[in-house]
Amino acid sequence: MAWHQTIVQLRPRARGFHLVTDELLAQVPTVRSLRVGLAHLFIQHTSASLTINENADPTVRSDFERWTREVVPDGARYFAHDAEGDDDMPAHIKASLFGAGITIPIRDGTLALGTWQGIYLGEHRDHGGSRSVAVTLMGE
Amino acid sequence: MAWHQTIVQLRPRARGFHLVTDELLAQVPTVRSLRVGLAHLFIQHTSASLTINENADPTVRSDFERWTREVVPDGARYFAHDAEGDDDMPAHIKASLFGAGITIPIRDGTLALGTWQGIYLGEHRDHGGSRSVAVTLMGE
Amino acid sequence: MAWHQTIVQLRPRARGFHLVTDELLAQVPTVRSLRVGLAHLFIQHTSASLTINENADPTVRSDFERWTREVVPDGARYFAHDAEGDDDMPAHIKASLFGAGITIPIRDGTLALGTWQGIYLGEHRDHGGSRSVAVTLMGE
Repeated sequence: MAWHQTIVQLRPRARGFHLVTDELLAQVPTVRSLRVGLAHLFIQHTSASLTINENADPTVRSDFERWTREVVPDGARYFAHDAEGDDDMPAHIKASLFGAGITIPIRDGTLALGTWQGIYLGEHRDHGGSRSVAVTLMGE
Repeated sequence: MAWHQTIVQLRPRARGFHLVTDELLAQVPTVRSLRVGLAHLFIQHTSASLTINENADPTVRSDFERWTREVVPDGARYFAHDAEGDDDMPAHIKASLFGAGITIPIRDGTLALGTWQGIYLGEHRDHGGSRSVAVTLMGE
Repeated sequence: MAWHQTIVQLRPRARGFHLVTDELLAQVPTVRSLRVGLAHLFIQHTSASLTINENADPTVRSDFERWTREVVPDGARYFAHDAEGDDDMPAHIKASLFGAGITIPIRDGTLALGTWQGIYLGEHRDHGGSRSVAVTLMGE
């Protein structure tokens, strides 16, 4: 049984949803040494999220952004927390809607994702900057 | 410390939310051998989800489906990804809203669910077919 | 490799979102003995949730409650499951939207949360009472 933990810095992205599978995996080569296990990824921020979704068509990511702007509107009249701008409180809600953490099975040295699955960074601020992700691997 | 991993195929379901606790557990008898641990369930698709909710009244599941259709409407004007039909892009969003994975504590050889908790499959496509779930157990 | 599992009872809260990091951590001192690991928290109910969000400004929590009431309205016309009151079916949906479980990395004897992250209890019933959370720690 082995544990491996590291903090990965993702490069800054524009507001929206971004496929980050390759950028993350490149920084955790230890996955390849595990026959069975779990990878846990945890974003250490309250206005960005990690989720699993379609890895091929970029319009899926832009549709994600359009839908989230419809359902959690910038500057909605009922938000009181607005000192940091109209995108701030919606970003907090989106962070919890999609979630700060994901756990992915490891099988035969790779992530056991389905054919069409990839890891999305949800960047919910207009200017979020670099985001840190704590990656914890356990397995054997 | 023991690891156990298997891929479970769920039989096809109609669009909607379905209680699949028994179908899943029947295929992972190893749970019974663990005194303490975690069970991780991960659906390997981008248009279906796993979530925990009420295990008794079937109207809870039909109300889940009605609410998700209200909030993520089929064929919404702002979706660009529509080549596979009006249910496709909404299915991707619902997959991330409810999530691809759940982790459940194991205690004394069984899932430590609350009295009213069960495992839901969210089938978000009109014709989703069989779904595969990677089940990873770890414990002692 | 060590496992530690306990059931924590949270004191009753009013409907809304509440910061419970300190109340939870006070009951799992074992975190301090782990150099690397994971903490899994699982609420054993179908009308309350756990999520990670902003730990400083209380208006973030009240804005969470306002937004969830907008998006999952009490007594919506399309809900059939209403025998227990107008807040019941919305509470089930919110429980799955935010989720029953969270996993947090452990690093050097403490939760590896970001500076602004805390653990929220989402209490989605008008009179939810005390809530039980199964806490599972694993690590070394």
